[in-house]
Amino acid sequence: MLSSVTHSLRLGASGCQGSMRSMATVISGNKTSKLVRERLKNEVEKMRSQFSGFRPSLVVLQVGDRDDSNLYISTKLKAAAEVLHSIMSVNENLSVHGLIVQLPLDSVNPINTELITNAVSPDKDVDGLSCINAGKLSRGDLGDCFIPCTPNGCMELIRQTGVSVAGKHAVVIGRSKIVGAPMHDLLLWNHATVTTCHSKTPDLPEQVSRADILVVGAGRAEMVSGQWVKDGAVVIDCGINHVPDETKASGKRVVGDVHYASAKQRAGFITPVPGGVGPMTVAMLMENTVQSAQRFLLKNQSRW
Amino acid sequence: MLSSVTHSLRLGASGCQGSMRSMATVISGNKTSKLVRERLKNEVEKMRSQFSGFRPSLVVLQVGDRDDSNLYISTKLKAAAEVLHSIMSVNENLSVHGLIVQLPLDSVNPINTELITNAVSPDKDVDGLSCINAGKLSRGDLGDCFIPCTPNGCMELIRQTGVSVAGKHAVVIGRSKIVGAPMHDLLLWNHATVTTCHSKTPDLPEQVSRADILVVGAGRAEMVSGQWVKDGAVVIDCGINHVPDETKASGKRVVGDVHYASAKQRAGFITPVPGGVGPMTVAMLMENTVQSAQRFLLKNQSRW
Repeated sequence: MLSSVTHSLRLGASGCQGSMRSMATVISGNKTSKLVRERLKNEVEKMRSQFSGFRPSLVVLQVGDRDDSNLYISTKLKAAAEVLHSIMSVNENLSVHGLIVQLPLDSVNPINTELITNAVSPDKDVDGLSCINAGKLSRGDLGDCFIPCTPNGCMELIRQTGVSVAGKHAVVIGRSKIVGAPMHDLLLWNHATVTTCHSKTPDLPEQVSRADILVVGAGRAEMVSGQWVKDGAVVIDCGINHVPDETKASGKRVVGDVHYASAKQRAGFITPVPGGVGPMTVAMLMENTVQSAQRFLLKNQSRW
Repeated sequence: MLSSVTHSLRLGASGCQGSMRSMATVISGNKTSKLVRERLKNEVEKMRSQFSGFRPSLVVLQVGDRDDSNLYISTKLKAAAEVLHSIMSVNENLSVHGLIVQLPLDSVNPINTELITNAVSPDKDVDGLSCINAGKLSRGDLGDCFIPCTPNGCMELIRQTGVSVAGKHAVVIGRSKIVGAPMHDLLLWNHATVTTCHSKTPDLPEQVSRADILVVGAGRAEMVSGQWVKDGAVVIDCGINHVPDETKASGKRVVGDVHYASAKQRAGFITPVPGGVGPMTVAMLMENTVQSAQRFLLKNQSRW
């Protein structure tokens, strides 16, 4: 899991390496996310030295009191109007640069999730879930939007392998708003030929076997068999699934959407679960927040 | 070119039909667009009988005086501010339900096209080119957006074949905002497994050979050879290219992005150029305008 980033920067074609080939290089999300956080720390220090007293700020709005969030605003909001009011007040607050609303919304009254995610100002939507940011990403305006954190983290991990994306055949399994759909967009606009597979795809093993780059965000434990994986492929596993395991004190363990042990024998590069995509998601949320703060400063230099 | 729609409604699998197989059924855009226009005429009559005096209205804003537009507003606007002002005034006009801005913008001063297309109210954006409509389409909210006219017309033509899209492998060539990218979205959310190819795809013949449904919007004359086409595939050609032809009085003729004569020998269904996708685009613009008018009436029944 803690394979060094120097290793994973190994350049070269991702072709078959013969029958005696070595196992895949593990792409460590723990290491890569640490690199990202260090880079961000430097950028924030630079901002603070240029603009005394300035600091990037993120607000996490949680509706209800679900305890599966460890972030810092927890409030018991009961209706859409109340949530919208909170969002508007953060939208208008010039000292806040990022706003995310924890999903799913935990409310005694049903709330339209679309309405809520689209109420967040596009300039502060560091989750990249609003229609406007999704529209820009899907049509290739990558420099002018916020990219959802999980696929953004996947791209960072792919970059770490040194394998170039342009001209490759990428396969994405899943088409969710937070993983599959934006992952497709990112790979496409980094000039891969991209195939999106999903629950209605009848020939998943065959589709997967053609992937130079495979990103799986299906939410089904170990559904991708290592036998399907193309020799030398880059395999990025976004799954976080709990399966029973009597050998653990908790009675369960976490696995990805890819059968890791078998896939590792064919892939050129592979992310582990845990310690792969997971740590990257939080790092990229920080990156988007810092980026938002930088854009704010660029627009408002005279006001600071 | 004028093959009957009854023919093209032929149901059945699009598999190989042996060495003595017949030529592809031609999907007529002329016939299909006529059906759409007749349906719309009925819907407009229904609206007008329910809401006396009401009529769906579309404004086409043309910047400059390019003569390749035959639509009804032509004005010599010279700067972005002027264009934006015109857009705002149409946005606020309750008797207009659709607004499109003719692209490319023909102005003596360079104008940011994104700025202009995104100034159109999402509720009147019947071209479906604003970020908000693109974001909804790309993330699967098809019922709550306007779908760009060319890919919407392609879907209508595919429907005419009787071939179901769900579970099929669709290949889209091109990733433009008005054809390729939204076509991908429409096929994906109609549950095809979708591969997007483009100028950086190194193995186009191989990708095309796997397509049960092929939509080409590349803008290159006859670039897709019939030899690449899978037996029985549905082939939709969005290309409109002028090539020299000394046998014509004009010295040129119009061809698509697909080599029609050879593709017709392998495909199960194929659109001609001209008379295929072209006539559908205008019909779908009318459809979007009628849809917009219907949504307006639904929201404003009491005001009418």
